[in-house]
Amino acid sequence: MSKKKEKPIAVSVIKRLPVYYRFLTTLHSKGVERISSSELAEKLGVTASQIRQDLSQFGNFGQRGYGYRVANLKEAIAKILGLDNQMDMVLAGAGNLGKAIINYPNFKRRGFYIKGIFDVNPELIGQEVAGLLVQDISLLADFLTNNRIDIGIITTPPESAVDVADIFVRGGIRGIWNFAPVSLNYSGKVLVENVHISESLLTLSYMIDEKFGSKS
Amino acid sequence: MSKKKEKPIAVSVIKRLPVYYRFLTTLHSKGVERISSSELAEKLGVTASQIRQDLSQFGNFGQRGYGYRVANLKEAIAKILGLDNQMDMVLAGAGNLGKAIINYPNFKRRGFYIKGIFDVNPELIGQEVAGLLVQDISLLADFLTNNRIDIGIITTPPESAVDVADIFVRGGIRGIWNFAPVSLNYSGKVLVENVHISESLLTLSYMIDEKFGSKS
Repeated sequence: MSKKKEKPIAVSVIKRLPVYYRFLTTLHSKGVERISSSELAEKLGVTASQIRQDLSQFGNFGQRGYGYRVANLKEAIAKILGLDNQMDMVLAGAGNLGKAIINYPNFKRRGFYIKGIFDVNPELIGQEVAGLLVQDISLLADFLTNNRIDIGIITTPPESAVDVADIFVRGGIRGIWNFAPVSLNYSGKVLVENVHISESLLTLSYMIDEKFGSKS
Repeated sequence: MSKKKEKPIAVSVIKRLPVYYRFLTTLHSKGVERISSSELAEKLGVTASQIRQDLSQFGNFGQRGYGYRVANLKEAIAKILGLDNQMDMVLAGAGNLGKAIINYPNFKRRGFYIKGIFDVNPELIGQEVAGLLVQDISLLADFLTNNRIDIGIITTPPESAVDVADIFVRGGIRGIWNFAPVSLNYSGKVLVENVHISESLLTLSYMIDEKFGSKS
């Protein structure tokens, strides 16, 4: 209802922008200067008209017969995605998944900084991961009081995820990036983005059965 | 175009079924016997009419005024999702992310079995992960020739992902579960389900900016 933004952008479009961004970054690093919407479409497995429609919502990036300037389009999407802002994050759950996320490439370059890592496991507490010491989860609430953190990452087992999320919410976090197989619902007060790993596998499994039939 | 299935089910519906399934499994393990569509909706952050519409596509599960029988609905969804079939999987990339996936809970109980783990890193080759020895990636192609594998999991760095995917496709794999930040496109010959981790974070970051404004 706010008048701040001209037109709200559909979540489906938002979800495609990072895909465009990643691909344009690869092209740019390879020295490619321009690309047509049909080439982009082929590489990304969407239709050219979809790409033109998505990008037209943010301004006039393409030129008929020339295509898109890779560098310009990449920068424009980075701006739309807010990659020029810094986002500070904490992570709860320093097991394999947590470590994988912490070490995921390119976070820093895109403005994402992990400021604190927390766990309950005494074997993990005190370990160094990517230059930070894993802290006792009992210190998380205080840490959030003393540091302005934007995003809380949950890579704990499902049993602990809701408790951690509650600490995040009370600590004033604005978004939760949740990898645990639980549903978190804070009805808009805090944004939740789920990476539901097993749901993704079940979807693939269903599609395989549909397409190829069961193995018998 | 095939007449085998009465009506194809939208991917958006398929993606919600595992969410329903997971939640019903939790309810069932807590001894809950029935649930209304509005309770389900509230817990899962979707609308009750969405749930009724989704589930009505697969049969008549609910009873007006009574709701859904948790056990029946759970079993029915498991069947739709093909969880009564076994899916054999191999994984390439035995770093933190790969190990996290291999150790993800409940895979076996849902019929997903990891049959082989492969990596290029000599420090990882020979290590035991979840009862299997990590093998040299150079053995992957032969392994696929000698074993009927349904799903190939890619948890390698982006640079190796396309090469691994090509080995999977040549090896007769039917679906690729891809965690690497690259676009794989085999135009329907092989199904690809992506878990694009950084795209998910960029989406969250965009939504935070939209909702709360930049930190400045």
